[in-house]
Amino acid sequence: MKKVHNFSAGPAILPQSAIDASIEALQDFSGTGLSLIEVSHRSKEYEAVVNEATQLVKEILNLSDEYGIVFMQGGASLQFDMIPYNFLDEGETAAYLNTGVWAGRAIKEARIFGNVNVVASSEDKNFSYIPKGFNIPSDSKYFHCTSNNTIYGTELFSFPETNVPVICDMSSDIFSRPFDASKFDMIYAGAQKNMGPAGTTLVIVKKDMLGKGKRKLPAMLDYKLHIDNGSMYNTPSVFAIFVCMHTLRWVKSIGLTEMAKRNKAKADLLYAEIDRNTLFKGTVVHEDRSRMNVNFVLTDKSMEEEFLKLCKDHNLSGLKGHRSVGGLRASLYNALPIDSVQVLVDTMKEFEQLKIKQGAANS
Amino acid sequence: MKKVHNFSAGPAILPQSAIDASIEALQDFSGTGLSLIEVSHRSKEYEAVVNEATQLVKEILNLSDEYGIVFMQGGASLQFDMIPYNFLDEGETAAYLNTGVWAGRAIKEARIFGNVNVVASSEDKNFSYIPKGFNIPSDSKYFHCTSNNTIYGTELFSFPETNVPVICDMSSDIFSRPFDASKFDMIYAGAQKNMGPAGTTLVIVKKDMLGKGKRKLPAMLDYKLHIDNGSMYNTPSVFAIFVCMHTLRWVKSIGLTEMAKRNKAKADLLYAEIDRNTLFKGTVVHEDRSRMNVNFVLTDKSMEEEFLKLCKDHNLSGLKGHRSVGGLRASLYNALPIDSVQVLVDTMKEFEQLKIKQGAANS
Repeated sequence: MKKVHNFSAGPAILPQSAIDASIEALQDFSGTGLSLIEVSHRSKEYEAVVNEATQLVKEILNLSDEYGIVFMQGGASLQFDMIPYNFLDEGETAAYLNTGVWAGRAIKEARIFGNVNVVASSEDKNFSYIPKGFNIPSDSKYFHCTSNNTIYGTELFSFPETNVPVICDMSSDIFSRPFDASKFDMIYAGAQKNMGPAGTTLVIVKKDMLGKGKRKLPAMLDYKLHIDNGSMYNTPSVFAIFVCMHTLRWVKSIGLTEMAKRNKAKADLLYAEIDRNTLFKGTVVHEDRSRMNVNFVLTDKSMEEEFLKLCKDHNLSGLKGHRSVGGLRASLYNALPIDSVQVLVDTMKEFEQLKIKQGAANS
Repeated sequence: MKKVHNFSAGPAILPQSAIDASIEALQDFSGTGLSLIEVSHRSKEYEAVVNEATQLVKEILNLSDEYGIVFMQGGASLQFDMIPYNFLDEGETAAYLNTGVWAGRAIKEARIFGNVNVVASSEDKNFSYIPKGFNIPSDSKYFHCTSNNTIYGTELFSFPETNVPVICDMSSDIFSRPFDASKFDMIYAGAQKNMGPAGTTLVIVKKDMLGKGKRKLPAMLDYKLHIDNGSMYNTPSVFAIFVCMHTLRWVKSIGLTEMAKRNKAKADLLYAEIDRNTLFKGTVVHEDRSRMNVNFVLTDKSMEEEFLKLCKDHNLSGLKGHRSVGGLRASLYNALPIDSVQVLVDTMKEFEQLKIKQGAANS
């Protein structure tokens, strides 16, 4: 098999140990003689998987018993609907920070259920920075933000201090760095970046947030029911949670402090080359540059296809920017080794040399 | 690896070809050099998977272009909420047939959104039969039924003729027999019985049903949006749909007519033994006996544990009845070979001989 450097924005690169464990479990899950995808989710062997995955989240994020932890389906997108359905009654107002496409979708959905106060937005500069110094009115039902903006490549390195409950979409940077989870009332994350394959979503919610709304909740949209049933109200996404468990084991074995160090080293290496190499430029203000998704462009846009072709020749995959913004994007999730980043940097240098030679030949 | 006979009610046995293809794709998906769970759902290789899976559903069920076909998340349980959310406005009435736990959950959820007219129920006899000859009022918004009742082991072998739109939960018998799909306005099925692993749900809906309700629909609960985006409004359950595609290829290669013949032969073999062997008895009226889930009990309930132990010794797995009803249940989904049913029947005969010997010894 060829060695491909996977810079995909998600679904994305996962630790090899999780992939190997999945292959083994598809052949024979936990000594049952059955494939992982053929066993009952109520079997004791599989219940052990859900319990361990849940416990690992608790340990890694140092969560107290005040929090419910569940694996759900429907991606972060379903959370955009469930959050206001559960927490925002008609006539009430929630505060949202608008930092990009996904924050925007969360805002759009919340407006179906109640009032939305967009407390700050970076839309004026194509979401190339994180707004700061904004005010969150104390009568807001909750404050919603997106910790990392996968499409634009910005990241929140600090969160506002507020007495309002804080809800955060951490889909693309959860488990990439230590943070104080006790400051959040709800955290959610689609698995398909730093936690596992597509098909499951982690939801962490403070239990005292639950059961207070006026709306009658459909079963599948009721956090309390999912928490009370330990992710087993209905058949969960069996395979996806299994892979998450193995990815979380790997995260725990490294630890968030070391993980953050590695992620910073990878990001620093790439941003340094973007800043040094005149053929490239970053699209985000320096202080808000994401360590997960590095967005950049060719100074001369007409060279983009040629550069992407060279990347392909070097087995660098997934570098095209999101279709809504174009340009280039290198996603440096936990499982991406720094060696892959070095190959990308070397390719950028090679492209520079190529252009110098072409320039000399043409002059 | 030991040979285990998998009678699990779901997640359940799948064709070996689909498991083998999954293992291969976890190593290298479609020649990309990446694992299936690491590739972008927007890659052309993966888009081909979703397209083929959708096309296979269309071909196998002989669906016209009037129908939208999507793979969603959240299981049939989320459909219990989405159906009334999309199709039942406040003050309107929908007709529901109550044939068991899942039908009951669908009814409970619909009541959150509008009025429910339970047109017939078999609750009076613990759901051991399918009600017939009931009336569906012509002003009902739709008629909802469950084609196969996994927990109780009953199955609808004919559907009522009505001018009201018919919506059917086919989670546990879709693709097990031919049927006239054009008589249905919506069909849905959680994958984890005859279609694939847990984590994706097939939804087939007549497009002329859409966009007519008064309710403002959250994005993730809007069928139209999912159909318009070809199962890609948000990141789909990548792995689960891949396995479905391979299972559907296998279903197509056999054909629904032959599949039904095989399923009938398996069910006939087991029911014949249940009726012959005085240690066992069926729990469902003969004409409504499911070919997917065979429910039965020991005539002397105190022998149940001993029989289950003998089953375990013969590598027969998943035979315990649902925790809500007890007894025994053998699920005979498409991928279960008749050889496994024969082993179960032989074990029932062995148990009979054992009891005869014990009786002789005790007398």
